Amino acid sequence: MGKGRMEAFSDGVLAIIITIMVLEMKVPHGAELSALRPILPVFLSYVLSFIYLGIYWNNHHHLLHTCRRVTGPILWANLHLLFWLSLFPFATGWMGENEIAVVPAALYGVVLFLAAVAYYILQRAIIASEGPDSVLARAVGRDWKGKLSPVLYLIAIGATLVSPWISEAIYVLAALIWLVPDRRIERVLREPA
Amino acid sequence: MGKGRMEAFSDGVLAIIITIMVLEMKVPHGAELSALRPILPVFLSYVLSFIYLGIYWNNHHHLLHTCRRVTGPILWANLHLLFWLSLFPFATGWMGENEIAVVPAALYGVVLFLAAVAYYILQRAIIASEGPDSVLARAVGRDWKGKLSPVLYLIAIGATLVSPWISEAIYVLAALIWLVPDRRIERVLREPA
Amino acid sequence: MGKGRMEAFSDGVLAIIITIMVLEMKVPHGAELSALRPILPVFLSYVLSFIYLGIYWNNHHHLLHTCRRVTGPILWANLHLLFWLSLFPFATGWMGENEIAVVPAALYGVVLFLAAVAYYILQRAIIASEGPDSVLARAVGRDWKGKLSPVLYLIAIGATLVSPWISEAIYVLAALIWLVPDRRIERVLREPA
Amino acid sequence: MGKGRMEAFSDGVLAIIITIMVLEMKVPHGAELSALRPILPVFLSYVLSFIYLGIYWNNHHHLLHTCRRVTGPILWANLHLLFWLSLFPFATGWMGENEIAVVPAALYGVVLFLAAVAYYILQRAIIASEGPDSVLARAVGRDWKGKLSPVLYLIAIGATLVSPWISEAIYVLAALIWLVPDRRIERVLREPA
Repeated sequence: MGKGRMEAFSDGVLAIIITIMVLEMKVPHGAELSALRPILPVFLSYVLSFIYLGIYWNNHHHLLHTCRRVTGPILWANLHLLFWLSLFPFATGWMGENEIAVVPAALYGVVLFLAAVAYYILQRAIIASEGPDSVLARAVGRDWKGKLSPVLYLIAIGATLVSPWISEAIYVLAALIWLVPDRRIERVLREPA
Repeated sequence: MGKGRMEAFSDGVLAIIITIMVLEMKVPHGAELSALRPILPVFLSYVLSFIYLGIYWNNHHHLLHTCRRVTGPILWANLHLLFWLSLFPFATGWMGENEIAVVPAALYGVVLFLAAVAYYILQRAIIASEGPDSVLARAVGRDWKGKLSPVLYLIAIGATLVSPWISEAIYVLAALIWLVPDRRIERVLREPA
Repeated sequence: MGKGRMEAFSDGVLAIIITIMVLEMKVPHGAELSALRPILPVFLSYVLSFIYLGIYWNNHHHLLHTCRRVTGPILWANLHLLFWLSLFPFATGWMGENEIAVVPAALYGVVLFLAAVAYYILQRAIIASEGPDSVLARAVGRDWKGKLSPVLYLIAIGATLVSPWISEAIYVLAALIWLVPDRRIERVLREPA
Repeated sequence: MGKGRMEAFSDGVLAIIITIMVLEMKVPHGAELSALRPILPVFLSYVLSFIYLGIYWNNHHHLLHTCRRVTGPILWANLHLLFWLSLFPFATGWMGENEIAVVPAALYGVVLFLAAVAYYILQRAIIASEGPDSVLARAVGRDWKGKLSPVLYLIAIGATLVSPWISEAIYVLAALIWLVPDRRIERVLREPA
């Protein structure tokens, strides 16, 4: 199985997810500025999810860059990741339409957490195929972001019991940490082997 | 006609089908956990269909790998397969929203069956073009999965008269059989011709 | 401008149009077989439009095959064609949901006619760029299908005044004429120049 | 990061945005010609946005043509541009469904303006990476269109206070200015360095 077709398929699915999300932002009935008011939380949720999907697309590209051969486990780990990412429009829409209520904010965190787990599994599947001395294996050894994020999501899920706004703040924080492009792999690539 | 463009178009359609399905999972009105309850069967149907489409994408790739030249019949057999796959979101949504009722569960089986038939026709069109001594012709000779699946779908359609839950169990079983990646073609490729 | 990116963009738009159409087939509320009855005309309209878009995708590929350089006019003629094709889901849905009423059947013909005109303009733009001695210029000289189709669409639009079912029969006929893959270009390509 | 995958992802997102917009054109309930009447402003808004997205796709291609290396800032500037373009279906639908009312017409201008700003930022990010002597840096020096457009959008936003129809006229004018393909870069490319 060529890596190219798996990349192209993942790009297609990610492009569709990121664009379909905006469909949850239903055109309001009135034509006044106040008609936009109930859409504001949906819009902000959309911005957050757009950034998260941009981060995933970016990291996914760096990850596949280190993968030379697509095996069965890699292929299914990739589809598994795309599955959880495909739930972003639903989770985003539910959170936005309920003005950041408790359960929707928690569900959003659950989807973030399971997508992070799926990303981790995909990473493991590639390392299993490429070997413990591969570029990726050495790069993820210092992957503090990949280890911190799922913990942050779990804290945010728990924090919804206090206030869903704390959870939102944690989701924004976790996104900001990732916004800096992942230079770990690039750095190791430049090191002498 | 280059194979590349047919692969790219099929990938695009499959990526859209797999992502659009999630739009059938309508954002619920309430914000409590109980509001998610009616969505559960839609979600489970979505998981099942996501796996089926993943299987088709995977097998489709292996199939086209054995095809060196795209003829008119292959092109239309491919579009015919994409047509039945495009009905997955409708069949999945109807089954999920009616909590696995009799007729929707049967219709789901009909779509699965017709997609399997379309896949078989595509396989035949490629063998007709590649010749009876081709890699594919030898590989499908032992294709017990491809022969068993349509039979299972027909049994499941009939079983809806007893209980749609038996049908669901058969759909899950048929998917599990396919989840193991198709190594037949790879095996024959490694054999001396 | 590379031809590859224009092909990829056209493939993407066509793949989305062909898949989005199925969203017009709304999941019915009941779970009985009779609940599918009102969907039947929508389904049949969907089948017809799916075939038409398949024909356009196929012919579009053959057309671009003869085009070596993408000029400004070709690029905009291509976007113009995609515009009319993007109205297929709307025209199909309106025709299907009104059980083939007079005005929707006529509008469907208008969209078919304008897409055919747009295809003709794209053909002219490519010939203007490739020259009167190009493969395409010689191939379209005998293009009786390309000349007959718009006439058939106009007749069908007029026939809605008698009965929209006559129009439907003409739409089906025009599709059947095209279903045979376009071998004109291939034939000329094999002739000595 | 290869330029190819960023181009492919951008093409995918643009293809989906341009096609999803037509979903805002809801199939009317009646089957008479008069049922199409309320859809007319939605249709005209759709035509305008389709042309704008075609312009962006075209210019985006020319822009990336001058970019040899994808850096982190370029990647995020590109996603930022896609974000504002992804709001076209919403802004178009709201403007069309309210028959070009004041606030929706202004919001449409705001989205146009912010997309233009995002395009400018992407241009700057590429120049920062390619250097002040690059092809792009010399080409944008005379970029009167890129400087005029945002000003026109701001005037149009202000003009909604007088009449949203003036704003529409300005949006159409600004699109017409861009419809002529961007030959600046091509011209500079042909000049001796």
